[in-house]
Amino acid sequence: MFKLVKKSSISQARLGKLKTGHGTIKTPFFMPIATQGSIKGLTPVQIKDLGAQIVLSNTYHLFLRPGLSVIKNAGGLHKFMNWQGPILTDSGGYQIFSLSSRRKINDKGVDFRSEIDGKSIFLSPAKAIKIQNILGSDIIMSLDECPSWPCSRIQAQGAVDRTSAWAKICKKTYQKQNIKKLLFGIVQGSVYKDLRAQSAQELVKIGFDGYALGGLTLGESERETYQSIQFAIQEFPTNKPRYLMGAGKPEQIIRAVKMGIDMFDCVIPTRNARHGLLYTSVTNPSGWLSKDFYKKIHITNAKYKNDFRPLDLNCSCYACQNFSRAYIRHLFMAKEQLGKTLATIHNLAFYLNLMKEIRDMISKDKL
Amino acid sequence: MFKLVKKSSISQARLGKLKTGHGTIKTPFFMPIATQGSIKGLTPVQIKDLGAQIVLSNTYHLFLRPGLSVIKNAGGLHKFMNWQGPILTDSGGYQIFSLSSRRKINDKGVDFRSEIDGKSIFLSPAKAIKIQNILGSDIIMSLDECPSWPCSRIQAQGAVDRTSAWAKICKKTYQKQNIKKLLFGIVQGSVYKDLRAQSAQELVKIGFDGYALGGLTLGESERETYQSIQFAIQEFPTNKPRYLMGAGKPEQIIRAVKMGIDMFDCVIPTRNARHGLLYTSVTNPSGWLSKDFYKKIHITNAKYKNDFRPLDLNCSCYACQNFSRAYIRHLFMAKEQLGKTLATIHNLAFYLNLMKEIRDMISKDKL
Repeated sequence: MFKLVKKSSISQARLGKLKTGHGTIKTPFFMPIATQGSIKGLTPVQIKDLGAQIVLSNTYHLFLRPGLSVIKNAGGLHKFMNWQGPILTDSGGYQIFSLSSRRKINDKGVDFRSEIDGKSIFLSPAKAIKIQNILGSDIIMSLDECPSWPCSRIQAQGAVDRTSAWAKICKKTYQKQNIKKLLFGIVQGSVYKDLRAQSAQELVKIGFDGYALGGLTLGESERETYQSIQFAIQEFPTNKPRYLMGAGKPEQIIRAVKMGIDMFDCVIPTRNARHGLLYTSVTNPSGWLSKDFYKKIHITNAKYKNDFRPLDLNCSCYACQNFSRAYIRHLFMAKEQLGKTLATIHNLAFYLNLMKEIRDMISKDKL
Repeated sequence: MFKLVKKSSISQARLGKLKTGHGTIKTPFFMPIATQGSIKGLTPVQIKDLGAQIVLSNTYHLFLRPGLSVIKNAGGLHKFMNWQGPILTDSGGYQIFSLSSRRKINDKGVDFRSEIDGKSIFLSPAKAIKIQNILGSDIIMSLDECPSWPCSRIQAQGAVDRTSAWAKICKKTYQKQNIKKLLFGIVQGSVYKDLRAQSAQELVKIGFDGYALGGLTLGESERETYQSIQFAIQEFPTNKPRYLMGAGKPEQIIRAVKMGIDMFDCVIPTRNARHGLLYTSVTNPSGWLSKDFYKKIHITNAKYKNDFRPLDLNCSCYACQNFSRAYIRHLFMAKEQLGKTLATIHNLAFYLNLMKEIRDMISKDKL
């Protein structure tokens, strides 16, 4: 359950506590992504050392491989991957619409082909809830229809109507199965004001433990992204957490927090890390979160060959406390996996520190 | 310096202590391989947790990339890679003869092309010592000529003569530079009895802190391998450590220990790990080190899909204490790096446990 602890007096930013079956999370927070039951290259010990409060896993990917029965037999996803903190699982909606071929959608659910073995799979809203319950997810996401960008008004309207209809079934299944986890609804409506508002209102009427914004940062302009957030957020009750799915860059997270968003997930810190693109904080008289407070560096750049400073002077992560830019550059040049591992640790530390700083600033009424 | 602690009464196996600038190592021991300054996928914390006493790095690879000046500027290899235990570096001889194209060898040294940028490089015996000293290696290997297999008698004779001549220069350089590390000589001579004996005698006459056997397990028969070890080992003084380079399988290590070998290195536990080939001990009434005391399993095999036992019931490594075969199989099937990392941890734990068991058995006079 969510407890609102504080509202900023200078923005819509909020501090809160979200209680789950595996611990209480301070909001606003960022979720590192463990798509297939593992944050790429990191052990659970390393994830815990980073101070990650929760990780996000992917229902779609885990359902296809290793399959539900394996994770059920293991005693759930927490035991399977040996992660004792909270886990949020997405419903699979986004992946089905972005990754699967030959999908057919109707009111009952969606038929799609497995990208692994081509098998035909049918997923209904009720099944999406049951699967996530078996996985043992602490935060279960309703099944939504997530159209790709660009999205016509007619497509967006269809997605909103179907998502609302499915959300009702998700909620009913959740109640019928007497599930003791958190259940979130997902708002669609693309960039259309009335559709975002309608979607949000319909979900609020059904009643969820939290509200997510889906179908954003898919290619629309930044202005459209923030407007769409605004269209929906004003319909949300203040006593429930709000989750901006799949975002974003540090400056996007800061801006969304100021609008009242509490939860984030994004592949970019980990994906960038694997490509040697690293976040470093810039000493700035206006401090963290000011304009240009960070810089991305390409660690393979020749200028780091003899740079024996840590990646980020202001970072206390394992990579920064124990290794130089020169060494991490060498690992990337030599295609040594440890380079990606250390880079992933650092970029996640940067994001998690950013969230800590954000919470600190809100508590001081500076954000 | 080496101290012989005990000799087995039932074989030539020995227990000893080898003192280095970064700590004392119990012999017999196995060196995990950190070719380019990193054990593939593992952090120094994970290496230390495994109980590795020493790691082996590659002069040839590090000289080509990142280059000597970078490691010198870093304050040496220990600081560069953040490993505070002992490091042995090979001289580059083996790599020059197995990896480089267009090499030209004469009495002064060897001319070869960098496999990275094609640049022409000249390495002399004196330079090989100076480079390893700058790296900060605790155990420095002399430069040898290491012919590939098959090796004619004439080739073997030439390699022995040149290796002895170079060994003298290596020793002289080491003395002149007043180097306070351990210096080892490398015996060549392929499978020829008199040549192995000649090579060993000539090196012993020069006088080294330890004696290595090079040019073995390159394709010759097992019988030839062990005979060649025997030809040389009988020429070695008992008060110096003996190192069988590049070997081997667990049963080869046990057999070589019984012949009086003290030091080993091999890529197979780590390379096999990355291919999902894992060492598991077999409960056997005759105990560890008996015939068939271990089994290699292919973790991707379908029969492990729902196998929730640890990789090895007798292993206390991080992978075995925290994860199931089913999870590690899933990681390999999903091409998740964590699978390789956990497999590497386990296979190294298996090898390091093997060495511990060997030392224990020698101390009880059972090996």
